[in-house]
Amino acid sequence: MNPSDILQLDRVVHERVRLAIMSMLAASPDLSFTEVRDALDLTDGNLMSHVRTLQEAGYLAVTKAYQEARPLTTLALTKAGREAFAAHIARLAAIVQHARPA
Amino acid sequence: MNPSDILQLDRVVHERVRLAIMSMLAASPDLSFTEVRDALDLTDGNLMSHVRTLQEAGYLAVTKAYQEARPLTTLALTKAGREAFAAHIARLAAIVQHARPA
Repeated sequence: MNPSDILQLDRVVHERVRLAIMSMLAASPDLSFTEVRDALDLTDGNLMSHVRTLQEAGYLAVTKAYQEARPLTTLALTKAGREAFAAHIARLAAIVQHARPA
Repeated sequence: MNPSDILQLDRVVHERVRLAIMSMLAASPDLSFTEVRDALDLTDGNLMSHVRTLQEAGYLAVTKAYQEARPLTTLALTKAGREAFAAHIARLAAIVQHARPA
């Protein structure tokens, strides 16, 4: 790995909170907004702002529905989001391996 | 790994350019400002700004000297910088492992 490869990391995915959100969503088909917010101890506004950034990048799908007359917002990675997350993890793995030669 | 552990990542180290700078410096005792700037294709101002952030965190030592009457600025990780980088790599390794169960 060349150090300048690190600069190829996708900014949208690399940011800590978004990496945590994508990491949670990579492990399930979808999660409710509330589940993600509570697991990461975020405010509604903070999660909403990261959700918007991920949506604009085409990485996240947001579904609004009603469950027992209460609004339910569901988050899921898109295909592009799963691919971007997998590519990011591969880059991080290369960085880790480079930093810790066996 | 809990997804909220990702939020424990050190912001100073996590940012892409600083991760690249620290990655280069972790592999050598020191490097000149010019070597780092050219390897990462940064401007003087951009590198200087990240150097300042790393210095303020206590992670980077900057030495100014003269070599054949020309100023030479040398960058090196401090002990705290090496520790912060190693801790960061350990956290990234945990994230990678969590995302890619064997």
